[in-house]
Amino acid sequence: MHKFSGLFFRVFAFLVFGAASLAAQSTPKSLAEKLGYARDAKLVIVHADDLGMTHSVNAASIKGLESGLVNSASIMAPCPWFPEMADYAKTHPDADLGLHLTLTSERVFYRWGPVAPKDKVPSLVDSNGYFQLSWTEPPHIDAKEVELELRAQIERAMAMGVRPTHLDSHQYRLFQNGAEMFQSALRVAHDYKLPVFVVRDWFADHPYLETSLSAGDLVVDHTITIDPGVRPEKWADFYRSALKNLQPGVTVFIIHLAFDDEEMRSATRERDTWGAAWRQRDFDFFTSAEFRALLREQNIHLVTWRELAHAPK
Amino acid sequence: MHKFSGLFFRVFAFLVFGAASLAAQSTPKSLAEKLGYARDAKLVIVHADDLGMTHSVNAASIKGLESGLVNSASIMAPCPWFPEMADYAKTHPDADLGLHLTLTSERVFYRWGPVAPKDKVPSLVDSNGYFQLSWTEPPHIDAKEVELELRAQIERAMAMGVRPTHLDSHQYRLFQNGAEMFQSALRVAHDYKLPVFVVRDWFADHPYLETSLSAGDLVVDHTITIDPGVRPEKWADFYRSALKNLQPGVTVFIIHLAFDDEEMRSATRERDTWGAAWRQRDFDFFTSAEFRALLREQNIHLVTWRELAHAPK
Repeated sequence: MHKFSGLFFRVFAFLVFGAASLAAQSTPKSLAEKLGYARDAKLVIVHADDLGMTHSVNAASIKGLESGLVNSASIMAPCPWFPEMADYAKTHPDADLGLHLTLTSERVFYRWGPVAPKDKVPSLVDSNGYFQLSWTEPPHIDAKEVELELRAQIERAMAMGVRPTHLDSHQYRLFQNGAEMFQSALRVAHDYKLPVFVVRDWFADHPYLETSLSAGDLVVDHTITIDPGVRPEKWADFYRSALKNLQPGVTVFIIHLAFDDEEMRSATRERDTWGAAWRQRDFDFFTSAEFRALLREQNIHLVTWRELAHAPK
Repeated sequence: MHKFSGLFFRVFAFLVFGAASLAAQSTPKSLAEKLGYARDAKLVIVHADDLGMTHSVNAASIKGLESGLVNSASIMAPCPWFPEMADYAKTHPDADLGLHLTLTSERVFYRWGPVAPKDKVPSLVDSNGYFQLSWTEPPHIDAKEVELELRAQIERAMAMGVRPTHLDSHQYRLFQNGAEMFQSALRVAHDYKLPVFVVRDWFADHPYLETSLSAGDLVVDHTITIDPGVRPEKWADFYRSALKNLQPGVTVFIIHLAFDDEEMRSATRERDTWGAAWRQRDFDFFTSAEFRALLREQNIHLVTWRELAHAPK
């Protein structure tokens, strides 16, 4: 009986621990676990986009960063107000600032163009030498020119004192336009050893994202950004609900900060989406006491791109 | 006696009318006379510079133009807010708008670069691809690159609906840096059949201006612009005195309008000269009831570049 029970125990132990060990092998550590959190922890990057676009965006984003509630952001090197943000990045080396790689100039009365010489990136510019206002479908964009321009943007940023913690893409252009363009971005990211914003939830719509990635590439779990269909008076409701229903894992909130001032209203006056009032609403929510309380109440931890990049592989 | 007096009269008449006719031959019509005014008329162009630089400059300059007291202005095609002014020019074809040809980007936190591909104008750009902040002396600027860039600026402006009435030069760069650069500008002006801002009073310091001009080129008589040494509280005094002591002929007042707002203060924060408060002071004086009264009181007539260009040669 003892012998049998001894054998039984060994068999039982083999079954239990062996299975657990197999499970551990087949389920690699999540990003949360690599960062030292529980597997079901709710981790958030509160990420402001479009820094460098206007002074209003810069001023509001800096104020957001300095509130501690907005904890990451990315900067547009081709934009007129980039030097102001480069100066901020240089004097605030701990700030979690990446580059918002930019291939379009989507406003009508205020515009910018490529960092690379325009005759080297003809598919990216319109007849007046600005980045195109929008891309027709399918976009006649040369991925080689994209890569040249991305490198020019990173080189300008680094020469002006920015040490980017990550790369992402203005208007998601690099992620939504086929394997070739995404692979250009990825090649650049690998060369500069920078993580690039890719979300697991995008794989279903764009399978080439997953198949293009290497083992060492970071992938965040979820992203949340407000929809143009949300009515202004429902703004806080949208974010409140998103925070209360957050899934485990790393979620990037993509937000757009600016003040609803004369400069921003004029720069965006041809349409309200991502306009001055929109950005003021984002600023108001993400610097509010309510947002701070929700983070605490929902047991949400803020993490940065820098932490993600330094997590064990 | 009669005979003698008859002879005397003929001799007298010959002396008087002949001399007058010789005088008329040796003193060509002044610009004022060509415009139909008396030779000693006091004619003024109230000219706002730097349109397109920021939204604040645009908004204040448009308000100045619409007051009727600022009656001419020029636009910077390389600047981020150029599209806003191009749109205004297109929808206000009677406005006297020229091009403020630009070869520098003189601010620190807000910058712009050439319209031509940067690899075609290497002497004009710094290592980050912006126009140079300032030019060292002697400037190592290639006049062929200058000409290429000037043509690119005019082509962009015309493609975007501007029909310039004249050309001038941001920070006077084209007039103060030698014959070769001035002749580049003049060649471009001739090709586009546009008058270029040249002042007779500059000939003493820069003789190549006079020797480079052709018979058909317009030359205005005087120009007045406020000096950085004038204290803010003496601003109106300076202009008051200038208007009360105006010389006969065509005088161009070069003024710089903007509002002393957040955008303009940030764009110019590294130094006060031509800064936000400076430009607000210019705006306040040149849209004031006092300025309007001074024009009337001093019998000063406003003329435009368009009128000058259409005056009989």
